[in-house]
Amino acid sequence: MAYRETDQVRARKAAQREHLLVSAEQLVREGGFANLTMQTLARQARVGVGTLYRYFDNKGRLAAEVFRRATEREVAAVAQAMTHGDTVVARLTHVLQEFVRRAQSAPKLAWALIAEPVDPEVDSERLHYRRQYASLYQALLREGVASGELPEQNIAVVAAAMVGGIAEALVGPLSEPLEQDDVAEALVGFCLRAIGL
Amino acid sequence: MAYRETDQVRARKAAQREHLLVSAEQLVREGGFANLTMQTLARQARVGVGTLYRYFDNKGRLAAEVFRRATEREVAAVAQAMTHGDTVVARLTHVLQEFVRRAQSAPKLAWALIAEPVDPEVDSERLHYRRQYASLYQALLREGVASGELPEQNIAVVAAAMVGGIAEALVGPLSEPLEQDDVAEALVGFCLRAIGL
Repeated sequence: MAYRETDQVRARKAAQREHLLVSAEQLVREGGFANLTMQTLARQARVGVGTLYRYFDNKGRLAAEVFRRATEREVAAVAQAMTHGDTVVARLTHVLQEFVRRAQSAPKLAWALIAEPVDPEVDSERLHYRRQYASLYQALLREGVASGELPEQNIAVVAAAMVGGIAEALVGPLSEPLEQDDVAEALVGFCLRAIGL
Repeated sequence: MAYRETDQVRARKAAQREHLLVSAEQLVREGGFANLTMQTLARQARVGVGTLYRYFDNKGRLAAEVFRRATEREVAAVAQAMTHGDTVVARLTHVLQEFVRRAQSAPKLAWALIAEPVDPEVDSERLHYRRQYASLYQALLREGVASGELPEQNIAVVAAAMVGGIAEALVGPLSEPLEQDDVAEALVGFCLRAIGL
C-alpha cells in the first residue's frame, strides 16, 4: 500500500511539474523570457511561489528547462521536415519553409528561443541546440555531396553558417513587418545558392 | 584653482576607468567573460574591489562595457576593410578574410564576443552590434545590386543571414582544430555564392 502511494505521489508530482512547464511556456509565448518570473508563473499556474521552488531551484533553471522542451520540439520538426522530398533541394526548401512558418506562427516564442537576451543557462542551451541543428544540416550536405547533387564544400563551416544565417534572418524580420512568404523565399534562395545550387 | 583641481580629478578618474577597462579586456582575452569577475579584475588591475564599484555598478554593466569597446573596434575594422577593393567580390572577400584573421588571432576574445553564455546585458549589446554589422552588409549589397554586379535580392534577409552565418561559422571552428585558411576560404565561398556571385 505504501508502495502504491509512492507511485501516486510521484505521478502527481510529474503531473504538477508538467502543468508548471506548460504554464511557463505559455508566458514565454506571450512575452518572451522577460515575461517568465517565479511570480508570474505562480499566478499563471495558480500555485504558491514556494511550490515552484520545490520543482525549480531558480528562474535560470526554469527558463533553461522551458527552452529545452520548446527547442527539442523545433529540432524534431526540422529533422522530420528534412525527410520530405527526393532531392537535397526539395528537402532543404521544405525544412526552411517549415522553420519560417513555425517561427512566424509563434513570433514571440521564436524570438525568445533564438535571440532574446536571457540568463546564461539559456545561452548555454542555445549553443547545444545550435550544434544539433548543425549536425542535421551536415548530414543533409554530406548526402548531397556524396550523390553528386552538391559540389564539394567544407561541410562543417557551411552547416554552421547555415544554422547562424537561418536564425539571424528570422530575428530581424520577426520584429519587422515583413511578409512570411518573402522571408521564406529569400532564405531558401540564400541557402540554396550558398551550398552551390 | 578649485576648478583646475576638478579637471584634474576628472582626468584621473577617466585614466583609472581606462586602466580598469583595459585590464578587464585582458582577462576576457585570457579566459572569456567567465574569467571576468569583480575579484579577478581587482587583482589584475591592482585596486580594491570597493574601488571597482565606484566605476561599475555590477559585473553585468562592466562586462557590457568591455563588450562594447571590443566590438566597436571589430565593427570599425569591418567597416574599414569594406573600403578595400573595386568590386563587391573583392571587398567582401577582404572583409571576411580580415574578420576570420582577427577572430583567430584572439580566439577566446572572439568566442566571448560572439557566443559565450553571459549576462543578459551583454546579450542585449550583441543584438545591437549585430544590427550594425547587418547595416554594413546591407550597404555593400545595395551597392552591388545598384551597379548590376549582384542580382536582385531581399537585402534585409540576406544581410541578416550573412551576419548570422559568419558569426556561427566562426564559433564552431574556434573550438576545433581547423586551419584559418580553410575557414576563411569556406566562408568566402559560402557568402559569395549566397549573394549570387
